[in-house]
Amino acid sequence: MPFVRIELFPGRTREQKAAAAKAVTEALVDTLGGMGPQSVYITFWEMQREDCAVAGVLKDEAPAGSKGP
Amino acid sequence: MPFVRIELFPGRTREQKAAAAKAVTEALVDTLGGMGPQSVYITFWEMQREDCAVAGVLKDEAPAGSKGP
Amino acid sequence: MPFVRIELFPGRTREQKAAAAKAVTEALVDTLGGMGPQSVYITFWEMQREDCAVAGVLKDEAPAGSKGP
Amino acid sequence: MPFVRIELFPGRTREQKAAAAKAVTEALVDTLGGMGPQSVYITFWEMQREDCAVAGVLKDEAPAGSKGP
Amino acid sequence: MPFVRIELFPGRTREQKAAAAKAVTEALVDTLGGMGPQSVYITFWEMQREDCAVAGVLKDEAPAGSKGP
Amino acid sequence: MPFVRIELFPGRTREQKAAAAKAVTEALVDTLGGMGPQSVYITFWEMQREDCAVAGVLKDEAPAGSKGP
Repeated sequence: MPFVRIELFPGRTREQKAAAAKAVTEALVDTLGGMGPQSVYITFWEMQREDCAVAGVLKDEAPAGSKGP
Repeated sequence: MPFVRIELFPGRTREQKAAAAKAVTEALVDTLGGMGPQSVYITFWEMQREDCAVAGVLKDEAPAGSKGP
Repeated sequence: MPFVRIELFPGRTREQKAAAAKAVTEALVDTLGGMGPQSVYITFWEMQREDCAVAGVLKDEAPAGSKGP
Repeated sequence: MPFVRIELFPGRTREQKAAAAKAVTEALVDTLGGMGPQSVYITFWEMQREDCAVAGVLKDEAPAGSKGP
Repeated sequence: MPFVRIELFPGRTREQKAAAAKAVTEALVDTLGGMGPQSVYITFWEMQREDCAVAGVLKDEAPAGSKGP
Repeated sequence: MPFVRIELFPGRTREQKAAAAKAVTEALVDTLGGMGPQSVYITFWEMQREDCAVAGVLKDEAPAGSKGP
């Protein structure tokens, strides 16, 4: 506690996820207070772009220049 | 917002998911009010039948005629 | 299955949620195929605007004209 | 309802998951009361060890003797 | 890990949840193997019956004799 | 995308959550790459200590000196 769930598109390396886990943990310890890093649990869950939609349109067909990655 | 998470068995095509995303978005805009389609975020998550259980029985062994797909 | 989780801001009436549940169920049965309405499970989860952030800004302080509801 | 989501590391066999589904269903029926086993829905979700972090460290690099599996 | 999320209708006492947490933890340790009880994390999340729907019908209006609690 | 879900014990102020949202967003933009802050969606979900268990014991009864907050 806190438990943090991060859902993201594929393509990040293990090193990027390691850096993200470290940085998010520090961000939460610094801002939420009352806990140490050993209380922060993070899980990453990858989703394909075709499994995500905004405004009813799958993200693998969104036009360039639209909502971004 | 709203964020919609749809967990389903594998086997649907990209076209089926695209149609589902469009139809669910319209359904929510029509019924919930106070927002446009660009506020609806949908993610699909596939689970194997052997990773789902009802009444303590995995769905890949449920007898025909039982709870359905 | 499918299991559908809908996270939304507060303020919708029971009637709006009943209409949304019905419409989303029909939308999924029509588009995904291979299942009847009795296989669709939906849960609604309300979150306060101050418990949701985009671009690092809580939604209860987002300027009018920005991302919408 | 209840809906139960179990996130676990890979490597368990189908038989282990079948046994877990049965045992968890019985545990909930016995302790929560007011429902039969047919009301208990369970889903399993596997995550790689490199997709899970505690204290800012991915679990695939945690030193032996630390938090365990 | 495993992380277990249990979504249930309101009305269970703290004692019922304590008993469920203990029994589910034992069930998972016994069946999944390779871990001790200190690795099992459980969270309970209550949902109102009007926030849950099956077959497009909110559970607070389901006819007696239907799917049960 | 990414979607970030943070489950935490109650007691944090709006200001702490605002600071956490900002810091986590920056942490993810800096470490994951390929996206701007406007792509980061965060939701906070509070859970009571009695709705969280580790090792089969609810967190509101864990002895002082144990796993921490």
